[in-house]
Amino acid sequence: MASVSLHPSIDSGVKPGSGSFTGGTLSCLCTTGTVRLKIKGDVAHNHACGCTKCWKPAGAMFSVVAVVPSDNVEIVENGDKLAVVDSSALIQRHACKECGVHMHGPVERDHAFKGLSFIHPERFAESGSAAPGFAAFVSSVIESGVSPSKMDSIRARFKELGLEPYDCLNPTLMDVLATFAAKKAGTYRE
Amino acid sequence: MASVSLHPSIDSGVKPGSGSFTGGTLSCLCTTGTVRLKIKGDVAHNHACGCTKCWKPAGAMFSVVAVVPSDNVEIVENGDKLAVVDSSALIQRHACKECGVHMHGPVERDHAFKGLSFIHPERFAESGSAAPGFAAFVSSVIESGVSPSKMDSIRARFKELGLEPYDCLNPTLMDVLATFAAKKAGTYRE
Ligand SMILES: [Zn+2]
Ligand SMILES: [Zn+2]
Repeated sequence: MASVSLHPSIDSGVKPGSGSFTGGTLSCLCTTGTVRLKIKGDVAHNHACGCTKCWKPAGAMFSVVAVVPSDNVEIVENGDKLAVVDSSALIQRHACKECGVHMHGPVERDHAFKGLSFIHPERFAESGSAAPGFAAFVSSVIESGVSPSKMDSIRARFKELGLEPYDCLNPTLMDVLATFAAKKAGTYRE
Repeated sequence: MASVSLHPSIDSGVKPGSGSFTGGTLSCLCTTGTVRLKIKGDVAHNHACGCTKCWKPAGAMFSVVAVVPSDNVEIVENGDKLAVVDSSALIQRHACKECGVHMHGPVERDHAFKGLSFIHPERFAESGSAAPGFAAFVSSVIESGVSPSKMDSIRARFKELGLEPYDCLNPTLMDVLATFAAKKAGTYRE
């Protein structure tokens, strides 16, 4: 089973968070003019993501991505190297123009996730941030060229790692999205 | 657990299909001028669906819906009572204008599901068609006014019934959709 490589930070097992992570510094891959961001507090909803838009380290099939309140994100070094990858996307992914790492992705639109920013915890200099808890958009890796014949072993490997695989988000977040939609449509009931 | 009512055809347990269903007649709820369709062969991908667009019998939280090849659908009585609910939707749901039952919903657009038609097996006069095998778009029932606080018991009840709950489609169909998208994008690899 271990032959299926999903992401370097989970392939040898999911390391639990310390539970007391108070924040840290994210850096891009550049060795000079490194982009650095300070993050206050721990991350939430950390997960492996198979979508075609999230940044993945070289050779990885999945990204690992989490959210923090956008107010807890501060660009401290070389912010001028950041550019938005796709301004039409819900998540405004800010990538380093040189090395390509997505440093933060705030949601600013009227949406259930407004006020949150997507970041990649593997870029923390510090260890101990909350571990990934599930895998999202798993089927979407087919769109980045993964053979459909590999999907069974990919899903089995996620389960083995204790990360339940979903082809959308997890039930918690899907319910949050549906609740937001219901409130917008005026159909919400307690 | 049995207090959670999902759909009348599954609430007391999922009845397995005969495995040799050769087709049957679907009828709407009208007692006069009943719309009737002949379906050749068995249904496939039968499932409970929580989306807001599928037809549900009175009081049901979920619909139960399956597909057949559109070529296997023949309108045999009172087809003039059928009208498309929403012509902009992927599924062209044809409803009886009088009683509201969706009788068939062909997919005609360029899509992974092109050539298939969505029908409601509970409207078969005959028993034995393939049973539902999973639940799709479960979180979406929040959009029709189901309280988010009920979602845990709804998902638990589906599991108890042997119907794995998903907030999108099941992995088989999600892989089919991703494969179609990959082929369109030119990123597909065997
Ligand atoms: Zn960089
Ligand atoms: Zn009718």
